[in-house]
Amino acid sequence: MTDDITVAVAYHSGTGHTARQATAVAEGAQSSPGVTSRLWPVDNLDDELWDGLAAADAIVFGTPTYMGSPSAGFKRFAEATAPVYARLGWKDKVAAGFTNSQTINGDKLNTLVDLAVLAAQHGMHWVNLGLHAGWDSTTGSPDDLNRLGSWLGAMAQSNSDEGPELAPRPSDLATARALGHRVADVAAQLRRGRSARDVAAA
Amino acid sequence: MTDDITVAVAYHSGTGHTARQATAVAEGAQSSPGVTSRLWPVDNLDDELWDGLAAADAIVFGTPTYMGSPSAGFKRFAEATAPVYARLGWKDKVAAGFTNSQTINGDKLNTLVDLAVLAAQHGMHWVNLGLHAGWDSTTGSPDDLNRLGSWLGAMAQSNSDEGPELAPRPSDLATARALGHRVADVAAQLRRGRSARDVAAA
Amino acid sequence: MTDDITVAVAYHSGTGHTARQATAVAEGAQSSPGVTSRLWPVDNLDDELWDGLAAADAIVFGTPTYMGSPSAGFKRFAEATAPVYARLGWKDKVAAGFTNSQTINGDKLNTLVDLAVLAAQHGMHWVNLGLHAGWDSTTGSPDDLNRLGSWLGAMAQSNSDEGPELAPRPSDLATARALGHRVADVAAQLRRGRSARDVAAA
Amino acid sequence: MTDDITVAVAYHSGTGHTARQATAVAEGAQSSPGVTSRLWPVDNLDDELWDGLAAADAIVFGTPTYMGSPSAGFKRFAEATAPVYARLGWKDKVAAGFTNSQTINGDKLNTLVDLAVLAAQHGMHWVNLGLHAGWDSTTGSPDDLNRLGSWLGAMAQSNSDEGPELAPRPSDLATARALGHRVADVAAQLRRGRSARDVAAA
Repeated sequence: MTDDITVAVAYHSGTGHTARQATAVAEGAQSSPGVTSRLWPVDNLDDELWDGLAAADAIVFGTPTYMGSPSAGFKRFAEATAPVYARLGWKDKVAAGFTNSQTINGDKLNTLVDLAVLAAQHGMHWVNLGLHAGWDSTTGSPDDLNRLGSWLGAMAQSNSDEGPELAPRPSDLATARALGHRVADVAAQLRRGRSARDVAAA
Repeated sequence: MTDDITVAVAYHSGTGHTARQATAVAEGAQSSPGVTSRLWPVDNLDDELWDGLAAADAIVFGTPTYMGSPSAGFKRFAEATAPVYARLGWKDKVAAGFTNSQTINGDKLNTLVDLAVLAAQHGMHWVNLGLHAGWDSTTGSPDDLNRLGSWLGAMAQSNSDEGPELAPRPSDLATARALGHRVADVAAQLRRGRSARDVAAA
Repeated sequence: MTDDITVAVAYHSGTGHTARQATAVAEGAQSSPGVTSRLWPVDNLDDELWDGLAAADAIVFGTPTYMGSPSAGFKRFAEATAPVYARLGWKDKVAAGFTNSQTINGDKLNTLVDLAVLAAQHGMHWVNLGLHAGWDSTTGSPDDLNRLGSWLGAMAQSNSDEGPELAPRPSDLATARALGHRVADVAAQLRRGRSARDVAAA
Repeated sequence: MTDDITVAVAYHSGTGHTARQATAVAEGAQSSPGVTSRLWPVDNLDDELWDGLAAADAIVFGTPTYMGSPSAGFKRFAEATAPVYARLGWKDKVAAGFTNSQTINGDKLNTLVDLAVLAAQHGMHWVNLGLHAGWDSTTGSPDDLNRLGSWLGAMAQSNSDEGPELAPRPSDLATARALGHRVADVAAQLRRGRSARDVAAA
C-alpha cells in the first residue's frame, strides 16, 4: 500500500560498544514488517549521509557518553545539521536516541536530553523506549529488559575491561532492539496516517 | 470517518498567567478540524480528571516555572500519575509541554525537560513546537512567533508587574496556539494511521 | 578559632529510604572536625526550619525521584524558598544534593539537575561528590563506593520489595556519607577563607 | 600573603561572539585584587594548555550553543580531559560556565547544564552568577545586568545580523564580567581557607 518505511541509525562509536548498540537498534527496526533500516556512522559528513537521512522516515541518534555528554564525534555531526534546521528539512520525522557508557548511571540521561533537544530543534517527533524498568527488586536481574531503568531512550553499560565482543550485555542489546522496533512502528503509523489523509482529501 | 480527536490540556497555574497560555494551547488544538480540546486544571485529582485524561488522544502538560522547575501544584499531579505508569495507561498517547515564568530565560528549559522526562516514563510520543525562532536579528521583534527561541515546547514570559489580563503577550499566546494546533494534527495523523492498519488487517 | 560549621540536610522522604540516605549525609558531615549537622525534614515549613537553614553554612538538598524529578513534597519546600531568593538570603552558602529511586538509573540525574538549578537561583556554591565511579569493570561490585556512577550528587537505589531497614544498600549510604563529609570540609574551608580576609582587612 | 590567584577561561568561539564574552569574564576576574586571569582558546590541545589549566585555581568554561548544546570544538576539548579525570587532576578547583547563542532562550540552559555536569565529573566546585534577573518588569530593559534571567552561569545573545564588534550587547558583557569577578573571589576565599588550615595545623 505504501512504500517501505526506512529507519536510519545515525551514530558515532569510539570503541565499538556503541556500534553494537546501533546494530541492535537497526535489527529491531528491520524486524518490523515493511521496514528497512540502515546504519549511518557519522564519521563521514558527505552527501550520501545527508541524502540518506533526508530520505528516512525516522532517524535514531546514538553516541557514547563521554565526560557526561555526547562524544565530540557525534557533536560534530549534530552541529553540521544546522543547514537542515535552517530549512526545517527533518520536520515531522520520527527521532529517538541511545547511548552507552562505562559506568552504571554515568550521566547518560544528560546525553539523551541533549539528543532530545537536538531533535526538538529539528521539529522531529520524539519516540521513547515505552518499557517498564527491570532489575529493581530482589527478584530482578541484570538480564532484565531495560535493566538500567531508562525511558527517554535506550541506555547500555559496558565494563571498562570488556571489548565490544563482550559488552554491552545481551539485555542492553535487547533493549536497543526494542527501541528500534518501536521507532519503526510509530514511523509506519505516521506514514499510514498521512496516506489516509491524502486519500480522504482526494 | 473516525471519532473526534480529543486534546487534554493538563495544567497548573498560580497567578493566572499560565492559565492564559493553557487556554491558547486549547484554542490552537480546537482550531484543527475534527478536534475537541478541554482544559483540565490539575488542582482536583479526582476521577473526572483521570477519566478525562484516559480518554484523550493527547495530553499537553503546562506549569509555571517556579524556582527553576515545575510548580509544586503540577508536581503533585505528576506524582499522582504513578498508578497510570504502573499499567502504562498513557502509552502511545501524544504529549507536549508549555511553561511561563517571570524572567526571559528563567530556567524554563529545565521545566520543559522535566515534562518531557515525565512523558517518556509514560511512553508518550513527545511533540515539540516545530517553529523557527523569532526576535533573533535587528529586524526581529518581541511580537514574533516563538520570540523566546524554544523548541522542546512553548515558552511564555510575564512581567512581574503585569497581571494575566496583560501577560503573557500576544506573541507568546500565538506560540502556544501553534503548539496546540500541531499536537492536534499529529494526534489525528496517528489515529488515522491506527485505523488504516486495522482496515488493512480486517 | 571560628564558630562551629553547621550543615543542614533539608530533605523529603516518602517511604523512609531517602530519610536513611539523609541520615548518612548528616553523619558524614558530622564526622568532619568542628562540624555540627542537623536533619531538617521539609514537611513543616515553619519558622524553626527557615531560621535553621538561614543559620547553616551549607544546605544539602535531598528528595526521592518520583516520576523522573523531585517529589511534590520537596518541590513544595523549594517553591517556598522564593522569599529567600528575593533577598538572596542563601547567597554564598554551600549546596549539594542527593536522591534515591527504585530503579538503577531512574532519571535520578534529572532530579540532581533540578536541585543544582535551585541552588544556582539562590547563588549557592554547588559541591559535588568528587569520587570516581565504582562497579564499572568485571572486578567491580555493587558494594563499591559510588557504585551507580554519579558525580553531580549522591545517588541511591532501593529495591521495590525492600523497606528502609534493608535499602538503600550500605555502599549507597557510604556514598552519601562521603558527600556529607566533603560538603562540611568545603564549608569549613570557605569559612576560614572569610575569616582570613577579615583579619587581613582589620 | 599567598601567591596570586589564577583564573583560566577555557573557551571555544566560532564567530567571535563567545570570544568577546570570554574576554569579559577574564576582565571581571582580573578586576578582583591579586588575581591574574588568562584566556585559553581550546583550539590547540597542547601541553601549554594542559599545564596552564593544571596551574589555575579556577577554570571557567565557555562555548557557543550550537543546535542546543556546546559546540563540537568545545566538546573535543571536554573529551580530551578524560585523562585529567582519571587522576582527578582538577578536583577542588573552582568551575563556572558561560554561553552565547543567536536566539533569546536558545536552549542555552542545556549547554550550562552540560558544563556543570563536566565540572562535576572533575570534582570541581561550581560557582554560579549570584545575581537577580533583570528585564522582567515593565520598568526593566535589555540593558539590565543578567537581562536574560540565568543563574547557573552567564548567558549572552547575539543577533544573527550583528558581528562580534556589535554583539553580545554591553549588558551581556557586564554580566560575564560579574561572573568572572565572582569566580575570582570564591577562588581567593578557598585559597585563604586552605592556607589558614595549614597554619593552624603547623
